[in-house]
Amino acid sequence: MLTVAIPKGSLLTDSIALLQKVGLDFRTFLDSSNRLLQITDPMGTARALLVRAQDVPVYVEYGQAQLGIVGEDVLREKQPDVACLVDLKFGFCRMSIAMPKEGPYRSALDLPPHCRVASKYVHCAREYFQGLDLPVEVIPLYGSVELAPLVGMAEAIVDLVSTGRTLRENGLVETDVLYESTARLIVHPLSYRLNRDNVQGWVAQLRESV
Amino acid sequence: MLTVAIPKGSLLTDSIALLQKVGLDFRTFLDSSNRLLQITDPMGTARALLVRAQDVPVYVEYGQAQLGIVGEDVLREKQPDVACLVDLKFGFCRMSIAMPKEGPYRSALDLPPHCRVASKYVHCAREYFQGLDLPVEVIPLYGSVELAPLVGMAEAIVDLVSTGRTLRENGLVETDVLYESTARLIVHPLSYRLNRDNVQGWVAQLRESV
Repeated sequence: MLTVAIPKGSLLTDSIALLQKVGLDFRTFLDSSNRLLQITDPMGTARALLVRAQDVPVYVEYGQAQLGIVGEDVLREKQPDVACLVDLKFGFCRMSIAMPKEGPYRSALDLPPHCRVASKYVHCAREYFQGLDLPVEVIPLYGSVELAPLVGMAEAIVDLVSTGRTLRENGLVETDVLYESTARLIVHPLSYRLNRDNVQGWVAQLRESV
Repeated sequence: MLTVAIPKGSLLTDSIALLQKVGLDFRTFLDSSNRLLQITDPMGTARALLVRAQDVPVYVEYGQAQLGIVGEDVLREKQPDVACLVDLKFGFCRMSIAMPKEGPYRSALDLPPHCRVASKYVHCAREYFQGLDLPVEVIPLYGSVELAPLVGMAEAIVDLVSTGRTLRENGLVETDVLYESTARLIVHPLSYRLNRDNVQGWVAQLRESV
Protein backbone atom coordinates (compact mmCIF):
# COMPACT_ATOMS: atom_id res chain seq x y z
CA MET A 1 0.00 0.00 0.00
CA LEU A 2 1.17 3.53 -0.79
CA THR A 3 2.44 5.29 2.34
CA VAL A 4 2.85 9.06 2.68
CA ALA A 5 4.78 10.78 5.47
CA ILE A 6 3.05 14.04 6.46
CA PRO A 7 4.71 16.70 8.62
CA LYS A 8 3.18 17.98 11.87
CA GLY A 9 3.17 21.74 12.26
CA SER A 10 2.85 24.59 9.81
CA LEU A 11 2.68 22.48 6.60
CA LEU A 12 0.02 20.07 7.89
CA THR A 13 -3.19 21.77 6.69
CA ASP A 14 -1.91 22.46 3.16
CA SER A 15 -0.47 18.95 2.89
CA ILE A 16 -3.84 17.37 3.78
CA ALA A 17 -5.59 19.68 1.28
CA LEU A 18 -3.19 18.70 -1.51
CA LEU A 19 -3.64 14.98 -0.87
CA GLN A 20 -7.40 15.47 -0.86
CA LYS A 21 -7.18 16.88 -4.41
CA VAL A 22 -5.85 13.51 -5.63
CA GLY A 23 -8.52 11.60 -3.70
CA LEU A 24 -6.64 10.75 -0.50
CA ASP A 25 -8.54 11.80 2.60
CA PHE A 26 -6.37 12.13 5.71
CA ARG A 27 -8.42 14.85 7.42
CA THR A 28 -8.46 12.76 10.61
CA PHE A 29 -5.01 14.24 11.30
CA LEU A 30 -6.58 17.73 11.50
CA ASP A 31 -8.92 16.64 14.29
CA SER A 32 -7.43 17.98 17.54
CA SER A 33 -8.71 14.96 19.50
CA ASN A 34 -6.89 12.52 17.18
CA ARG A 35 -4.01 10.62 18.83
CA LEU A 36 -3.29 8.22 15.96
CA LEU A 37 0.00 8.68 14.11
CA GLN A 38 -0.82 6.14 11.41
CA ILE A 39 -4.11 6.08 9.45
CA THR A 40 -5.52 4.60 6.25
CA ASP A 41 -7.77 6.74 4.07
CA PRO A 42 -11.51 5.79 4.07
CA MET A 43 -11.23 4.17 0.59
CA GLY A 44 -8.37 1.95 1.79
CA THR A 45 -6.11 3.28 -0.97
CA ALA A 46 -3.20 4.65 1.03
CA ARG A 47 -1.71 5.02 4.46
CA ALA A 48 -0.37 8.19 6.07
CA LEU A 49 2.15 8.66 8.87
CA LEU A 50 2.04 11.86 10.95
CA VAL A 51 5.60 12.71 12.01
CA ARG A 52 7.82 15.66 12.89
CA ALA A 53 8.94 17.66 9.85
CA GLN A 54 12.58 16.65 10.45
CA ASP A 55 11.58 12.97 10.56
CA VAL A 56 9.74 12.96 7.20
CA PRO A 57 12.96 12.42 5.17
CA VAL A 58 14.02 9.64 7.57
CA TYR A 59 10.83 7.62 6.92
CA VAL A 60 11.22 8.18 3.17
CA GLU A 61 14.96 7.40 3.18
CA TYR A 62 14.31 4.05 4.89
CA GLY A 63 11.47 3.28 2.45
CA GLN A 64 8.81 3.16 5.19
CA ALA A 65 6.98 5.86 3.24
CA GLN A 66 7.33 6.06 -0.54
CA LEU A 67 6.25 9.70 -0.55
CA GLY A 68 6.75 12.55 1.88
CA ILE A 69 6.00 16.26 2.17
CA VAL A 70 8.61 18.46 3.81
CA GLY A 71 10.02 21.98 3.74
CA GLU A 72 13.09 22.62 1.63
CA ASP A 73 14.78 23.98 4.79
CA VAL A 74 14.81 20.46 6.29
CA LEU A 75 16.21 18.98 3.06
CA ARG A 76 19.00 21.59 2.87
CA GLU A 77 19.91 21.08 6.50
CA LYS A 78 19.81 17.27 6.65
CA GLN A 79 20.79 16.39 3.04
CA PRO A 80 18.85 13.11 3.11
CA ASP A 81 19.18 10.46 0.43
CA VAL A 82 15.76 11.05 -1.20
CA ALA A 83 14.53 12.32 -4.56
CA CYS A 84 13.01 15.80 -4.39
CA LEU A 85 10.54 15.83 -7.29
CA VAL A 86 7.93 18.58 -6.99
CA ASP A 87 7.86 22.14 -5.61
CA LEU A 88 4.42 22.17 -3.94
CA LYS A 89 4.19 26.01 -3.88
CA PHE A 90 3.00 26.33 -0.30
CA GLY A 91 4.73 26.93 3.03
CA PHE A 92 6.60 29.97 1.70
CA CYS A 93 9.32 31.20 4.03
CA ARG A 94 12.99 32.12 3.89
CA MET A 95 16.17 31.19 5.70
CA SER A 96 17.55 34.50 6.89
CA ILE A 97 20.15 36.17 9.01
CA ALA A 98 18.84 38.55 11.64
CA MET A 99 20.61 40.80 14.12
CA PRO A 100 19.66 43.39 16.75
CA LYS A 101 18.05 46.50 15.25
CA GLU A 102 19.97 48.69 17.69
CA GLY A 103 23.28 46.94 17.07
CA PRO A 104 26.27 48.08 14.98
CA TYR A 105 25.87 45.59 12.11
CA ARG A 106 23.64 45.83 9.04
CA SER A 107 24.59 42.71 7.05
CA ALA A 108 26.42 39.41 7.38
CA LEU A 109 29.53 40.99 5.85
CA ASP A 110 29.63 43.60 8.66
CA LEU A 111 29.98 40.88 11.30
CA PRO A 112 33.44 40.60 12.86
CA PRO A 113 35.42 37.38 12.25
CA HIS A 114 35.01 34.76 15.00
CA CYS A 115 31.71 36.23 16.15
CA ARG A 116 28.89 33.95 17.33
CA VAL A 117 25.83 33.01 15.32
CA ALA A 118 23.03 30.97 16.95
CA SER A 119 20.89 28.65 14.84
CA LYS A 120 18.77 25.53 14.67
CA TYR A 121 20.17 25.15 11.14
CA VAL A 122 23.82 24.56 11.93
CA HIS A 123 24.71 23.08 8.55
CA CYS A 124 23.02 25.88 6.54
CA ALA A 125 24.61 28.56 8.72
CA ARG A 126 28.13 27.09 8.45
CA GLU A 127 27.84 26.65 4.71
CA TYR A 128 26.70 30.24 4.19
CA PHE A 129 29.46 31.82 6.26
CA GLN A 130 32.06 29.54 4.66
CA GLY A 131 30.83 30.86 1.29
CA LEU A 132 31.46 34.40 2.56
CA ASP A 133 34.91 33.29 3.80
CA LEU A 134 33.93 34.65 7.22
CA PRO A 135 34.87 32.37 10.13
CA VAL A 136 32.12 32.33 12.77
CA GLU A 137 31.25 30.11 15.72
CA VAL A 138 27.82 28.56 15.18
CA ILE A 139 25.98 27.91 18.47
CA PRO A 140 23.48 25.06 18.00
CA LEU A 141 20.09 25.71 19.64
CA TYR A 142 16.80 23.77 19.56
CA GLY A 143 14.29 26.59 19.99
CA SER A 144 13.69 30.31 20.64
CA VAL A 145 16.83 31.25 18.75
CA GLU A 146 15.76 34.92 18.92
CA LEU A 147 16.70 34.93 22.62
CA ALA A 148 20.42 34.40 21.91
CA PRO A 149 21.24 37.95 20.66
CA LEU A 150 18.98 39.50 23.34
CA VAL A 151 21.07 38.03 26.18
CA GLY A 152 24.32 38.69 24.32
CA MET A 153 25.21 35.08 23.56
CA ALA A 154 25.35 35.66 19.79
CA GLU A 155 25.81 38.63 17.44
CA ALA A 156 23.34 37.22 14.91
CA ILE A 157 21.00 34.30 14.21
CA VAL A 158 20.19 32.18 11.18
CA ASP A 159 16.55 31.15 11.26
CA LEU A 160 13.46 30.43 9.21
CA VAL A 161 11.34 33.58 8.78
CA SER A 162 7.73 33.53 7.67
CA THR A 163 5.86 36.72 8.68
CA GLY A 164 8.79 38.26 10.57
CA ARG A 165 6.63 38.87 13.63
CA THR A 166 8.90 37.00 16.07
CA LEU A 167 11.91 39.00 14.86
CA ARG A 168 10.09 42.34 15.24
CA GLU A 169 8.81 41.46 18.71
CA ASN A 170 12.39 40.77 19.78
CA GLY A 171 13.97 43.89 18.27
CA LEU A 172 15.73 41.97 15.52
CA VAL A 173 15.99 42.94 11.86
CA GLU A 174 16.38 40.58 8.89
CA THR A 175 19.55 41.48 6.99
CA ASP A 176 20.40 38.68 4.55
CA VAL A 177 18.39 35.92 2.89
CA LEU A 178 20.24 32.61 2.49
CA TYR A 179 17.46 31.04 0.37
CA GLU A 180 13.69 30.86 -0.02
CA SER A 181 11.94 27.68 1.01
CA THR A 182 8.66 25.98 0.08
CA ALA A 183 7.14 22.57 0.73
CA ARG A 184 8.51 19.77 -1.47
CA LEU A 185 7.33 16.33 -2.51
CA ILE A 186 10.06 13.82 -1.78
CA VAL A 187 10.17 10.22 -2.95
CA HIS A 188 12.03 7.04 -2.02
CA PRO A 189 14.28 6.67 -5.11
CA LEU A 190 14.07 2.87 -5.45
CA SER A 191 10.27 2.79 -5.00
CA TYR A 192 10.00 5.43 -7.73
CA ARG A 193 12.17 3.51 -10.20
CA LEU A 194 10.44 0.18 -9.52
CA ASN A 195 7.05 1.98 -9.57
CA ARG A 196 5.71 -0.28 -6.83
CA ASP A 197 2.19 0.79 -5.70
CA ASN A 198 2.06 3.08 -8.78
CA VAL A 199 4.29 5.68 -7.14
CA GLN A 200 4.99 7.34 -10.51
CA GLY A 201 1.25 7.73 -11.13
CA TRP A 202 0.70 9.37 -7.73
CA VAL A 203 3.63 11.74 -8.27
CA ALA A 204 2.20 12.75 -11.67
CA GLN A 205 -1.24 13.40 -10.15
CA LEU A 206 0.21 15.44 -7.31
CA ARG A 207 2.35 17.45 -9.76
CA GLU A 208 -0.79 18.29 -11.78
CA SER A 209 -2.70 19.34 -8.65
CA VAL A 210 -0.16 21.99 -7.64
CA MET B 1 22.94 39.78 38.21
CA LEU B 2 22.44 36.05 38.81
CA THR B 3 20.87 34.38 35.76
CA VAL B 4 19.13 31.00 35.83
CA ALA B 5 18.21 28.99 32.73
CA ILE B 6 14.89 27.19 33.26
CA PRO B 7 13.64 24.39 30.98
CA LYS B 8 10.27 24.54 29.21
CA GLY B 9 8.20 21.37 29.43
CA SER B 10 7.86 18.71 32.09
CA LEU B 11 10.41 20.14 34.57
CA LEU B 12 9.06 23.71 34.49
CA THR B 13 6.59 23.64 37.41
CA ASP B 14 8.95 21.89 39.83
CA SER B 15 11.82 24.18 38.80
CA ILE B 16 9.78 27.31 39.54
CA ALA B 17 8.68 25.83 42.90
CA LEU B 18 12.29 25.07 43.88
CA LEU B 19 13.47 28.59 43.02
CA GLN B 20 10.57 30.02 45.01
CA LYS B 21 11.86 28.18 48.10
CA VAL B 22 15.08 30.24 47.96
CA GLY B 23 13.14 33.48 47.41
CA LEU B 24 13.24 33.75 43.63
CA ASP B 25 9.79 34.24 42.13
CA PHE B 26 9.57 33.35 38.43
CA ARG B 27 5.90 32.27 38.44
CA THR B 28 5.26 34.55 35.45
CA PHE B 29 6.63 31.68 33.31
CA LEU B 30 3.72 29.49 34.47
CA ASP B 31 1.18 31.97 33.13
CA SER B 32 -0.08 30.57 29.83
CA SER B 33 -0.51 34.07 28.37
CA ASN B 34 3.15 34.96 29.05
CA ARG B 35 5.27 35.43 25.89
CA LEU B 36 8.42 36.69 27.61
CA LEU B 37 11.46 34.41 27.56
CA GLN B 38 13.50 36.59 29.90
CA ILE B 39 12.22 37.99 33.21
CA THR B 40 13.58 39.47 36.43
CA ASP B 41 12.07 38.42 39.76
CA PRO B 42 9.92 41.08 41.53
CA MET B 43 12.68 41.82 44.06
CA GLY B 44 15.17 42.50 41.27
CA THR B 45 17.53 39.84 42.64
CA ALA B 46 17.88 37.52 39.68
CA ARG B 47 16.98 36.98 36.06
CA ALA B 48 15.54 33.83 34.49
CA LEU B 49 15.66 32.59 30.88
CA LEU B 50 12.95 30.22 29.66
CA VAL B 51 14.50 27.89 27.07
CA ARG B 52 14.17 24.39 25.62
CA ALA B 53 15.52 21.68 27.91
CA GLN B 54 18.28 20.85 25.39
CA ASP B 55 19.32 24.51 25.27
CA VAL B 56 19.75 24.93 29.05
CA PRO B 57 23.32 23.51 29.04
CA VAL B 58 24.21 25.74 26.06
CA TYR B 59 23.28 28.93 27.94
CA VAL B 60 25.21 27.72 30.99
CA GLU B 61 28.23 26.55 28.96
CA TYR B 62 28.54 30.00 27.35
CA GLY B 63 28.15 31.68 30.76
CA GLN B 64 24.93 33.51 29.78
CA ALA B 65 23.32 31.81 32.76
CA GLN B 66 25.42 30.90 35.81
CA LEU B 67 22.86 28.30 36.92
CA GLY B 68 20.57 25.96 35.01
CA ILE B 69 18.07 23.21 35.72
CA VAL B 70 17.99 20.27 33.31
CA GLY B 71 17.29 16.54 33.16
CA GLU B 72 20.22 14.17 33.47
CA ASP B 73 19.13 12.64 30.13
CA VAL B 74 20.12 15.86 28.33
CA LEU B 75 23.48 15.97 30.13
CA ARG B 76 24.27 12.35 29.26
CA GLU B 77 23.29 12.86 25.64
CA LYS B 78 25.03 16.21 25.00
CA GLN B 79 27.99 15.95 27.42
CA PRO B 80 28.19 19.73 27.87
CA ASP B 81 31.09 21.45 29.58
CA VAL B 82 29.24 22.37 32.79
CA ALA B 83 29.47 21.39 36.46
CA CYS B 84 26.60 19.19 37.60
CA LEU B 85 26.33 19.94 41.33
CA VAL B 86 22.98 18.90 42.81
CA ASP B 87 20.49 16.08 42.21
CA LEU B 88 17.21 18.00 42.56
CA LYS B 89 15.13 14.82 43.19
CA PHE B 90 12.28 15.66 40.83
CA GLY B 91 11.50 14.78 37.21
CA PHE B 92 12.00 11.06 37.84
CA CYS B 93 12.11 9.01 34.64
CA ARG B 94 14.32 6.41 33.02
CA MET B 95 16.09 5.91 29.72
CA SER B 96 14.83 2.57 28.49
CA ILE B 97 14.77 0.15 25.62
CA ALA B 98 11.31 -0.85 24.41
CA MET B 99 10.20 -3.28 21.73
CA PRO B 100 6.91 -4.65 20.37
CA LYS B 101 5.02 -6.76 22.92
CA GLU B 102 4.04 -9.23 20.21
CA GLY B 103 7.56 -9.43 18.78
CA PRO B 104 10.16 -12.20 19.18
CA TYR B 105 12.59 -10.28 21.46
CA ARG B 106 12.47 -9.84 25.24
CA SER B 107 15.68 -7.92 25.97
CA ALA B 108 18.43 -5.94 24.26
CA LEU B 109 20.63 -9.05 24.19
CA ASP B 110 17.98 -10.93 22.16
CA LEU B 111 18.21 -8.38 19.34
CA PRO B 112 19.99 -9.60 16.21
CA PRO B 113 23.27 -7.90 15.24
CA HIS B 114 22.86 -5.04 12.74
CA CYS B 115 19.22 -4.49 13.66
CA ARG B 116 17.76 -1.00 13.77
CA VAL B 117 17.09 1.01 16.90
CA ALA B 118 15.28 4.38 16.65
CA SER B 119 16.01 7.11 19.19
CA LYS B 120 16.12 10.80 19.97
CA TYR B 121 19.10 9.93 22.20
CA VAL B 122 21.57 8.76 19.56
CA HIS B 123 24.64 9.08 21.75
CA CYS B 124 23.11 7.23 24.72
CA ALA B 125 21.79 4.46 22.46
CA ARG B 126 25.13 3.96 20.66
CA GLU B 127 27.06 3.92 23.92
CA TYR B 128 24.76 1.31 25.48
CA PHE B 129 24.87 -1.09 22.54
CA GLN B 130 28.64 -0.65 22.24
CA GLY B 131 28.85 -1.68 25.90
CA LEU B 132 26.89 -4.84 25.02
CA ASP B 133 29.24 -5.39 22.05
CA LEU B 134 26.14 -5.58 19.85
CA PRO B 135 26.44 -3.65 16.56
CA VAL B 136 23.16 -1.87 15.75
CA GLU B 137 22.13 0.90 13.38
CA VAL B 138 20.75 3.85 15.35
CA ILE B 139 18.09 5.79 13.40
CA PRO B 140 17.95 9.39 14.65
CA LEU B 141 14.42 10.74 15.10
CA TYR B 142 13.09 14.00 16.59
CA GLY B 143 9.71 12.88 17.90
CA SER B 144 7.13 10.08 18.21
CA VAL B 145 9.85 7.44 18.36
CA GLU B 146 7.20 4.85 19.29
CA LEU B 147 5.97 4.92 15.68
CA ALA B 148 9.21 3.45 14.30
CA PRO B 149 8.68 -0.19 15.46
CA LEU B 150 4.96 -0.02 14.58
CA VAL B 151 5.72 0.64 10.90
CA GLY B 152 8.62 -1.81 10.87
CA MET B 153 11.42 0.77 10.56
CA ALA B 154 13.16 -0.37 13.76
CA GLU B 155 13.22 -3.48 15.95
CA ALA B 156 13.47 -1.43 19.14
CA ILE B 157 13.62 2.11 20.49
CA VAL B 158 15.64 3.89 23.17
CA ASP B 159 13.53 6.58 24.81
CA LEU B 160 12.75 8.41 28.01
CA VAL B 161 9.94 6.69 29.94
CA SER B 162 7.99 8.32 32.72
CA THR B 163 4.58 6.65 33.31
CA GLY B 164 4.93 4.18 30.43
CA ARG B 165 1.53 5.17 29.03
CA THR B 166 2.81 6.01 25.52
CA LEU B 167 4.57 2.64 25.31
CA ARG B 168 1.46 0.71 26.41
CA GLU B 169 -0.78 2.61 24.00
CA ASN B 170 1.52 1.61 21.16
CA GLY B 171 1.87 -2.08 22.08
CA LEU B 172 5.47 -1.68 23.23
CA VAL B 173 7.05 -3.18 26.33
CA GLU B 174 10.01 -1.79 28.30
CA THR B 175 12.77 -4.41 28.41
CA ASP B 176 15.98 -2.76 29.64
CA VAL B 177 16.78 0.34 31.67
CA LEU B 178 19.92 2.22 30.55
CA TYR B 179 19.80 4.61 33.53
CA GLU B 180 17.44 6.56 35.78
CA SER B 181 17.24 10.29 35.33
CA THR B 182 16.26 13.24 37.55
CA ALA B 183 16.54 17.01 37.28
CA ARG B 184 19.98 18.42 38.02
CA LEU B 185 21.38 21.80 39.00
CA ILE B 186 24.16 22.72 36.59
CA VAL B 187 26.61 25.58 37.01
CA HIS B 188 29.00 27.53 34.79
CA PRO B 189 32.34 26.30 36.21
CA LEU B 190 34.22 29.60 36.04
CA SER B 191 31.37 31.61 37.62
CA TYR B 192 31.28 29.08 40.44
CA ARG B 193 35.01 29.29 41.12
CA LEU B 194 35.06 33.11 40.94
CA ASN B 195 31.83 33.21 42.98
CA ARG B 196 30.58 36.22 41.02
CA ASP B 197 27.00 37.20 42.03
CA ASN B 198 27.36 34.85 45.04
CA VAL B 199 26.82 31.75 42.89
CA GLN B 200 28.22 29.51 45.63
CA GLY B 201 25.72 30.90 48.13
CA TRP B 202 22.79 30.26 45.78
CA VAL B 203 23.96 26.71 45.09
CA ALA B 204 24.20 26.05 48.84
CA GLN B 205 20.68 27.42 49.41
CA LEU B 206 19.25 25.36 46.56
CA ARG B 207 21.02 22.24 47.86
CA GLU B 208 19.46 22.76 51.29
CA SER B 209 15.97 23.24 49.76
CA VAL B 210 15.95 19.86 48.02
